[in-house]
Amino acid sequence: MDEQEMRRRIRVARVARLATVTRDGRPHLVPCCFALDTGAGAREVVYSAVDAKPKSTNALRRLDNLRANAHAALLVDHYADDWSTLWWVRIDGEGRILEDGPEREAALEILTAKYPVYVEQPPPGAVIAIDVAGWRAWP
Amino acid sequence: MDEQEMRRRIRVARVARLATVTRDGRPHLVPCCFALDTGAGAREVVYSAVDAKPKSTNALRRLDNLRANAHAALLVDHYADDWSTLWWVRIDGEGRILEDGPEREAALEILTAKYPVYVEQPPPGAVIAIDVAGWRAWP
Repeated sequence: MDEQEMRRRIRVARVARLATVTRDGRPHLVPCCFALDTGAGAREVVYSAVDAKPKSTNALRRLDNLRANAHAALLVDHYADDWSTLWWVRIDGEGRILEDGPEREAALEILTAKYPVYVEQPPPGAVIAIDVAGWRAWP
Repeated sequence: MDEQEMRRRIRVARVARLATVTRDGRPHLVPCCFALDTGAGAREVVYSAVDAKPKSTNALRRLDNLRANAHAALLVDHYADDWSTLWWVRIDGEGRILEDGPEREAALEILTAKYPVYVEQPPPGAVIAIDVAGWRAWP
């Protein structure tokens, strides 16, 4: 899978899984909505909002994790019982928490363009920005 | 979602995502086939084989990770643009590597019953066993 195809599959995917690491070195894993911003030049950032879907307090663990350890991994994959069709794309990067400000506003515009439900339910909380450090894909 | 329903959804899911932590504290994330063994009594173990699907050497990272840090998380989720239907189930546990022996053989039987493709392509390598320490589900 070439770099253009990796980016295309990430762009059209509706859901990804976000892995972070807890303060005591355990993996933490949640599904998330997200959008890739290839913005200006070579800078690539993935944005994901902590949205209005009901959350347990535990669900904000991802924010605590990133504050202590910025390393993050985001995975998109396709599964079918015909294993010749399997693929996955993973982004590794460094997370930042956007509590407010222009980058958060711009991120919400990108997320809302991808997920129209955000028009009526704007994410009220923080936005996670993951500065893309590397891409992996299989096959 | 009650405990019975969590287990049912894990049982029928065809794919999960496995998160581990690298030696230098980064999350590592891959999709995987898996099977839950509720076996004897309250002991629950998730098994996942490193199968014959072509892998980059990098794909064996999960084994190295678990040897250094046994903490693992396994996620199954459902996505649809109708967000009222979203759900996920996560298992947190401790991973072990089964290179050979009776537990590996028993695990391969369970995996083969779930994934018939393993009949013709028996996984040649190690099997990961995750001793289940906790369940989380949403909503």
